[in-house]
Amino acid sequence: MRFELEATLTFSDEIEDAKEDVEAIISKANDDLLRRGVPVEVEGGGAQVIDFSVEQDKLSLNIVSDRYVRAHDAVLRLKKAFNQELGPEYHVGVREVKIDQYEIQFELDREAKEDFSLPYVDEIEIDGKNCELNISGLTQEQLSKNYVDRIINRVKEKIEAQYYEGKEEMWELLWKSEEKKMVWEEDPTEAMEEKGWIKRGPTKGKWFYRPEAAKILKTLEDIVIEEVLKPLGFQEIIESMMVPFDVWIDTGHMEGIPNEAYYISEPTTRNPEEWEEIIDEIKITKDVPLEKLDEMTETPKAGICYAQCPVIYWSFRNETISDDSLPVLLYENTVPSTRYESGGRHGIERVDEFHRIEPVYIGTKEQLVELKEKLLERYKHVFEDVLDIEWRMAKVEPFYLQQAGGKKKEEEADLGTVDFEAYLPYKGARGESEWLEFGNLSIFRKYTDAFNIKSQTEKLLSGCTGIGIERWAIAFLAQKGLEPKDWPGKFRSYLGDMPEGIELL
Amino acid sequence: MRFELEATLTFSDEIEDAKEDVEAIISKANDDLLRRGVPVEVEGGGAQVIDFSVEQDKLSLNIVSDRYVRAHDAVLRLKKAFNQELGPEYHVGVREVKIDQYEIQFELDREAKEDFSLPYVDEIEIDGKNCELNISGLTQEQLSKNYVDRIINRVKEKIEAQYYEGKEEMWELLWKSEEKKMVWEEDPTEAMEEKGWIKRGPTKGKWFYRPEAAKILKTLEDIVIEEVLKPLGFQEIIESMMVPFDVWIDTGHMEGIPNEAYYISEPTTRNPEEWEEIIDEIKITKDVPLEKLDEMTETPKAGICYAQCPVIYWSFRNETISDDSLPVLLYENTVPSTRYESGGRHGIERVDEFHRIEPVYIGTKEQLVELKEKLLERYKHVFEDVLDIEWRMAKVEPFYLQQAGGKKKEEEADLGTVDFEAYLPYKGARGESEWLEFGNLSIFRKYTDAFNIKSQTEKLLSGCTGIGIERWAIAFLAQKGLEPKDWPGKFRSYLGDMPEGIELL
Repeated sequence: MRFELEATLTFSDEIEDAKEDVEAIISKANDDLLRRGVPVEVEGGGAQVIDFSVEQDKLSLNIVSDRYVRAHDAVLRLKKAFNQELGPEYHVGVREVKIDQYEIQFELDREAKEDFSLPYVDEIEIDGKNCELNISGLTQEQLSKNYVDRIINRVKEKIEAQYYEGKEEMWELLWKSEEKKMVWEEDPTEAMEEKGWIKRGPTKGKWFYRPEAAKILKTLEDIVIEEVLKPLGFQEIIESMMVPFDVWIDTGHMEGIPNEAYYISEPTTRNPEEWEEIIDEIKITKDVPLEKLDEMTETPKAGICYAQCPVIYWSFRNETISDDSLPVLLYENTVPSTRYESGGRHGIERVDEFHRIEPVYIGTKEQLVELKEKLLERYKHVFEDVLDIEWRMAKVEPFYLQQAGGKKKEEEADLGTVDFEAYLPYKGARGESEWLEFGNLSIFRKYTDAFNIKSQTEKLLSGCTGIGIERWAIAFLAQKGLEPKDWPGKFRSYLGDMPEGIELL
Repeated sequence: MRFELEATLTFSDEIEDAKEDVEAIISKANDDLLRRGVPVEVEGGGAQVIDFSVEQDKLSLNIVSDRYVRAHDAVLRLKKAFNQELGPEYHVGVREVKIDQYEIQFELDREAKEDFSLPYVDEIEIDGKNCELNISGLTQEQLSKNYVDRIINRVKEKIEAQYYEGKEEMWELLWKSEEKKMVWEEDPTEAMEEKGWIKRGPTKGKWFYRPEAAKILKTLEDIVIEEVLKPLGFQEIIESMMVPFDVWIDTGHMEGIPNEAYYISEPTTRNPEEWEEIIDEIKITKDVPLEKLDEMTETPKAGICYAQCPVIYWSFRNETISDDSLPVLLYENTVPSTRYESGGRHGIERVDEFHRIEPVYIGTKEQLVELKEKLLERYKHVFEDVLDIEWRMAKVEPFYLQQAGGKKKEEEADLGTVDFEAYLPYKGARGESEWLEFGNLSIFRKYTDAFNIKSQTEKLLSGCTGIGIERWAIAFLAQKGLEPKDWPGKFRSYLGDMPEGIELL
């Protein structure tokens, strides 16, 4: 790794008189200050000012360094030294640090398959495993905020992604139920739409669930709560559906799914007088003047719930949880989730707005590994004894891990994610058709770190298990049909009577 | 009422040769076409072309009219006549109708208290009860879409609003409960925040309800469902939380509360490649570049649920409901509602995101008046026997009706809105402090009209009764405190045990 930096320090006054002192400070720094932090076994390591010049109030520096004292850190160390040592005598201080040119060379793990660009980087030159970046125009603030490291990481990540592109998720069968008798082979969404149980919603990818369908969804919720969550001691919480970007930055959603989020835009003002003109326009035209509305609404600073766990983690940010309360077992069943899906007509198993019960757990590794087994047992009970469906469990590797480096991957391997999949007879034969992922269960290290959630004693991990009610409904209905007489007794006892519905002519 | 219009009709070719025929058509129209629709008893009524001129392909018209054939309708009638009568001989047709100047005079019900402006109107001159509007630049399409009538209505509405400004809502006590013993005089929000039952949410005006508070809210939901909705036969539906503007235009929300809505902004594309740059930026800066995000998100075309009824009405748009299904009794208890509230710190009774069960009913007037009595009876039962709170009912006149004209007002008077209000001891003495509106019940004519919802036989009305769970909670807790031992037995039996909660250090 090699860094070469050209920077200009602007002082509060002329420093030509101080040129000799400047030279002395640099010379001393080259021997000491710019080598601090370098491991003893690395000879000649650190940063070195290899050239400098003084003109009026400006000091130009040319710094070369290795990984141990990166050149952009060296320039900040030097700034401090000049302030301390020139200040008392010459009454000057550094007003501005300007990066004129920054050249960074480092080695890649793999060769890049194709070129790419990055913000803040003027040029990326990759030759085999050698990478050279040219950067100009970063401010001192950006340097001290660690932009350079993140730029280097992003280069490596992008190359890594080039290798994963198009590759399938890792998938490993853990368990599968017996084959079961299927009641029919219809697509439940189409059949329910025909019967008037559901109606396509007023905007893309949403549904209106009339009483019959709503009853089925709510019955599944009851089953989850009574058969899975209450027996294990989960407590319900209620969160806001609006997630500010800082929370999504901490969970990684902001960089992971910005293209799939629904965003929230607030009015620029609540003052009715300032809305009078747009109201006049709406009253006269019976239409919304979008350009004016654009002016009256803010750029989004929050999105609508994508998964419920981020806000639950946020609620514990920087908190220390009493050992008596561990493992923390919570679930959220109030806010709808949204995902901006691609166009086309899908069934209720793939929608832009859906309903998920999201249990979240925080505890020690032992507690969570034990909980995982208990959860799997309760799920198995529900799928087998209450819903009586044909399903299987698989170990999968989520997308973000595929892009992660080697060490991170290893660390997570013993925790990981389990998917629940159901056979959908309307999609074709068992062995040939895609099964529906209708639930999952994960344990993570990253969220307790990202939100700084601590216990009194041990390191905490966390996890969640998404229970998408529409997907449970499709898993069930695709196998069991729409006639209550074909549904298992235990399900029917949760259901009670089907509602009468509304007859439309 | 007097309309004077100057318009230019541009033909597909020169019409100077046809000048005599043009004059003949106008003369005939003045006697007949432009008087059609005028009541027989009105002598000399209708529109008249008082001047015209022909130059090349253009015909300029000066039309004066009364209310019976408004000048802008007259010009459209004339256009048709010219096409029919000049077309065959001269092979020309009207290509464009341009309104050069439109002067409208009409009488107001009341004098304006101050000046105002309107889109599409160049000048509004009000002298006592006489109003004169000058309009230029309306297109033919805008004329035929009825902009002129809506402009006149808006003038009247704005003047009416000047008289209502600052006036209080009509309020009339219908019934009040006995005085009850108050357990404490604390603000429940503050007390719950101190106990850690609730936490201010990650964005303005939202709350995070920890297990204790969530349990109270969910218990109130259960009580509503079991004690009010199920006994009366209400069926649950599930709607989308996203409401497109056309639905809000039909309900009047778009013009009524645009300053209080939370808006939804979709990604301009779901293609991850097009989001790569913004993702790079987020990864490098750990911040969201708002300007780039603004480019990647659409101007809102929908808002988040403000009340649940609009989407329920939408689900019946243009439908005929079978008499067997009347009255339709539905409720929505899934989507959260949002209101962009003004700043400042409020309790959970005034928030930007809250939870409401919204029962909606559609039926004949007789059915709904009967239902109203039954609902009031069930509410009374809950407030008295289950929650045991001190409350009262009042007849109120909603804001939109205060702005409505005399006839509309009379029509609605027998239906109207009932508010439920609870005494909040922490706000002061019974007679002196503001009580909390914690629910309401209304019957309307307008929604079945706006959405064209019909029965097989009779005209349908509709109504709704908002059950704001946070407000119910405050009404209850402000009087009964936070100690389960002080809560009524019937409430406690719905509650079961209070959850243990999570201990944070």
